[in-house]
Formats: sequence, structure tokens, C-alpha cells
Amino acid sequence: MAVQVDTRNRRVTMASRPNGFPTEADFAIDESEVGEPGAGEVLVRNLWVSVDPYQRGRMSTQRSYAKGLEVGDVMTAQAVGEVVESNDPRYSRADLVVGQLGWQDYTVTRAGSVRRVPDFLDPPTLALHAVGATGFTAYFGLLDVGQPKPGDTVVVSGAAGAVGQIVGQIAKIAGCRAVGIAGGPEKCEECRLHGYDAAIDYKGDDLRSALKDACPDGVDVYFDNVGGAISAAVHSRLNIGARIVICGQISQYNLDRPEPSFHPGALIVYRARMEGFLVTDYVNRYEEAAVRLAKWVAEGKIRWTEHVTDGLENAPKAFIGMLNGENRGKALVKIADRSEGR
Amino acid sequence: MAVQVDTRNRRVTMASRPNGFPTEADFAIDESEVGEPGAGEVLVRNLWVSVDPYQRGRMSTQRSYAKGLEVGDVMTAQAVGEVVESNDPRYSRADLVVGQLGWQDYTVTRAGSVRRVPDFLDPPTLALHAVGATGFTAYFGLLDVGQPKPGDTVVVSGAAGAVGQIVGQIAKIAGCRAVGIAGGPEKCEECRLHGYDAAIDYKGDDLRSALKDACPDGVDVYFDNVGGAISAAVHSRLNIGARIVICGQISQYNLDRPEPSFHPGALIVYRARMEGFLVTDYVNRYEEAAVRLAKWVAEGKIRWTEHVTDGLENAPKAFIGMLNGENRGKALVKIADRSEGR
Repeated sequence: MAVQVDTRNRRVTMASRPNGFPTEADFAIDESEVGEPGAGEVLVRNLWVSVDPYQRGRMSTQRSYAKGLEVGDVMTAQAVGEVVESNDPRYSRADLVVGQLGWQDYTVTRAGSVRRVPDFLDPPTLALHAVGATGFTAYFGLLDVGQPKPGDTVVVSGAAGAVGQIVGQIAKIAGCRAVGIAGGPEKCEECRLHGYDAAIDYKGDDLRSALKDACPDGVDVYFDNVGGAISAAVHSRLNIGARIVICGQISQYNLDRPEPSFHPGALIVYRARMEGFLVTDYVNRYEEAAVRLAKWVAEGKIRWTEHVTDGLENAPKAFIGMLNGENRGKALVKIADRSEGR
Repeated sequence: MAVQVDTRNRRVTMASRPNGFPTEADFAIDESEVGEPGAGEVLVRNLWVSVDPYQRGRMSTQRSYAKGLEVGDVMTAQAVGEVVESNDPRYSRADLVVGQLGWQDYTVTRAGSVRRVPDFLDPPTLALHAVGATGFTAYFGLLDVGQPKPGDTVVVSGAAGAVGQIVGQIAKIAGCRAVGIAGGPEKCEECRLHGYDAAIDYKGDDLRSALKDACPDGVDVYFDNVGGAISAAVHSRLNIGARIVICGQISQYNLDRPEPSFHPGALIVYRARMEGFLVTDYVNRYEEAAVRLAKWVAEGKIRWTEHVTDGLENAPKAFIGMLNGENRGKALVKIADRSEGR
């Protein structure tokens, strides 16, 4: 087998803490020696790295659920890569693995911190989205936190994004009406292609009247990826007993001083519940989600879109584009081809 | 038996819709004939009427969980009264009942819409607070919505108010640390007398540092009666998995345009849940709550304070005082003595 190993490792680091919206100047690329795996460690050559909204939070000093990045740190990211060298019996050369490997060519990591990408996952990038963290986020957020019942109306903001496109399809599998909110006619078309019963263009439509038309029976579950004014419009259509799943608040991440957007008193009027979650709290149930999501993908019940950018050096551009809503589906950066002759 | 019946019924009505904080000019007193009960109805002579924050909502045109009052309508209120005339086999003259009877001397109502005040409730006004709607609100809000576990820290705003004074005591029964927030040293003393482990004076103390001192292990359950800036301070001390019970938002009720006060994104950081509830949704379980609350009262585990104003004509003044935070414990208006010789 011919696994290619360079001796140099390119790393995309945080060069400065963004002030508001990140720019490419907030990132730097450096090169270092490829590391040597110790006992129980593996050296992974990364092939595809992930681009996600939560990474913006890691660049901030605001108190959050995970420690932030320091200037000079490699950008946090999930990646799929191939094992180049293994000092652990669980992995051999050329095995595909997924884990928190960062925006870089090579990563030395504990073998226990990565998961194997099963052979039947085709393409293997599914382990980064529909059958990976993105899909798990949609699965646990909608089913565990949102608790949809058949016949419920589920509204999803950021519906053409990575998580959003999966949530709508799981809502359909669960017997619900799925209504997506996205920016622009192309994204709305994408929502409809991915099973949403209706899609609302928040840039073009009158949001409140479009919501009224698309949700004639009100809103039972609101899966919120964006926050801000879009969410305020959805909150005005809630049914008694509604559940609001706070998955993300991307509209707020680049504001210096996010404005409070919510009146808790509304929860009394609707006897409603608003709950935040982190997919990492469900790590002990990832297998459950992976089995079901893989089956739904195999059955064609879950389809997906990848928004692929080529070249590690373009990861910052891909990230800024994703924060600007330029992606449809899962934003990925392809940084290398899989080795031949494996 | 000598149940007194006048022929005139005094009624306190909404004379005008309050603009911001209500004034006495927003109320009027009129007199009408005492009504005649039809089949299945009872005529009740009201003895004590209740004064509650939710009544402010009924005076507003904002969309809420119950239909608002129209100008000229009798003010909505719970009351305890004695049956004067019964056309229903369930009740006889001189029986004490509790129900939504309004700020008036006499009420004709369906027999099914009132509940009997058991003889062992002494004073019978307990049916309006500790063993009535106030206690039920505390019971279901804390136990069902807040789901406290032994060892949890439970913070309560409006802790010296009617609901607040009961919540702290139920929290203690449930094995929790109870921390009350109230305005002024007298109310804080009242909180300590009613079992709170610590009381914070939001008018006198530095709220954030006092919360830090009073909640060294963070906040697991926040029972929120007030909203606004006090709640924002509590939100900054939440533990992972915290539950925020939205019972009331009295700080917001008299604002023309309440400002949004909450960032839903905080719920992601703490994987927290914020949930509103209405006690009336638990009507099928009132009996469960009444049995337990009456037992805790009999055992001395739940104590209470009544803040009694004399005279139906003073109900508006009592209501405005309650909205200003002048009451300690349950605000009531005594409008008549029980008939003699019953």
C-alpha cells in the first residue's frame, strides 16, 4: 500500500481574535514537522475537514461550553483522514477514521479519540455530516429535545444548512409536517428537494404572513439554528405546549453585543419549553443514531448536499462563506485525495 | 341559620384599560341587583377575594393565555364565599366554596365551577393560597416543571410574594437549598422565616456578588416570578442542565413595550431548559396537590403570610400595591364576615 507521507504539516491557525465578522486576516497558515505518534496514538493524514458554525464560538472569549482557542492554535474541526501510522491495535495503516483532528494536513492523536469510518459509508464524508456529528445533532436535537409527535408541524431555521437539511427529513420520517426557512429561492428549492413540505425565503417573503400560510395549524416544534428576528417571527406562531430546540444562533455569533431577542413571558402564554443542547452530551448514544441514520441514507430517506471547497488554504474562505450563508448543505474542505493502492 | 343577603351587589369593574401602571381611575364600583341562580347554579356571597399578578394581564389587549377583560367587566378573581342559595344537590346554604367569582359581593355561577372548602382548612382563606391556586402554582411549577433533585440549589425571585413563599418551603421539603430574592430587608427576613436558607435583597445587595455567595454550587432550578434584570443576573449563575421555570414576569407587566431580556443562546452553553406553565393546565391533579399541601400545612412544614386589605372598595388599591411589591405573602381583600349561626 502506498500511503503518502510528506514531512511537512500545514496548519491553519487563528492569527487574531475576530472583532465581529471574521476576515481572512484572522487566520494564518504555517508549516511544521509531521509529529511522531507515541504509544496508543495514531498519525492521521487528513482528507476532508469540516466547516461549522460552532467554530466561530471557539474563536471568541465569551464564556461557552468549551474552552476557546488561543491565538496561534490550530482551528478546531472534525476531519476524516487515513491512518498513516498506528501504535494502537485498533487501527492499521489506511484505515479511515473521523475525529476532532483540526484544519491541518496531519494529526497525531490518541487512538481512542477517533472513530472508524465504516466501509459501507459512501462517500466517507458522510461520517462528517449525515451519519456524523451533523446528523447526530439533527437526530438528538429533534427527537430527544423537540419530541415531535406525528402530525406536528416542525419549523426549522437555517433549513438549507448542514443540520437543517437533515432535521427536515427526520421530521418527515417521524410523521410531521416540515417547514423550512432559508435565505433565497435557490436554498428554498433545495429545502423542497430535501423533503420539506414548504420552504420560506426570509429574504424575499413577508416572513410572518409566509409562516401563517405554511403553518396553518401553528408551530409545535421550532428547531432554531439562527436566532434573532427570524426566530421572533416563529415564536409568534407557537402552539400551546410547543418545544423550541436551541441548536444554534448563527445570526448572533458575529455581533459585538448580541441584543436579547426573547421575552420569557411568551413561554407562559404558550406553556412552551425552550431548551438548548449539545450533541457531545449524547456521545454514549452516537451508535444508536449512526445505525438509524445510515439505514435512512441507504433507503434514500435522507439525502444530503455537500458544499465542497478545495484546498486546506481555502478553509478560512469556506468558513467565512458559511457564516455568510453561502453554503447549501454541509460545508467541507477537501485537502487531499485518498492514497492509491490501498 | 342566618345567611345575610342584601339585594344589591357591588362590583369592581375595569373602567379603562391601564396605560402602563394601573391607577385607581382604571377601576369603578357599580351596584346591580343580586342575580338569581338557575338550575345547576349557586348564588355565592363572597367573603375574601384574591389579588394576583395575572390580573394585570387580563386588563391588557396583548395576546395571552386567557381572554382579556372588556371595559365594564367585573375584575377576574378567585374568591372564597358562602353559598346563599343552591339549585344543585352538591351544595347547601352556608357551604364554603372557592372559585373564579370576581371582585364583587355576590356571584351566580354553575355549581361545577366552584370547589368546596374543606372544614379542616383553617383559616378558610388557605383555599386561596397555600392550599389553593397559589400553592398549586408553587407545587406543579417547582416539582413538575423544575424537577428538583435533592441537593439542588433552587433560586426563587419574588420570594416573599404569595407563590414565592410556598416555593421555598416545598424546595426544602424536596431536600434542596432554597435561595430567595426579594426587595428590602423586611421581605428578606420574611423569606428566612419561611425556610429560605438565604435571602438576597435586590434593592440593597449587589445582586451578582450576593448570588455568588448564596449559591456557591451554582443554580440548578430558577423559579422566576419577575423577569427582567433580576432574572438576567440569575441566568449568569446557571449550572449545566439547569431548569428555568417561568411562572410570572411581574417586572414586565406594566411596561408599554417590554424589552426582550433573554439570549436563547445561553441555553446551549448550559444545556438548560426554560419552560412556562399555567396552573390551570394541572386542574386534573389539583386534588393531589391539595392533599399534600394541606398535610404540609398541618405539619407546620408550610407556613404562610396573608396581606389582608379590608373592604371590596379597596381592592384596586390592594392590587396596585401588590404590583408595586408592597405585599408580603398572599394579597387578599376581606369583603364580608361569615354569617353567624351557621
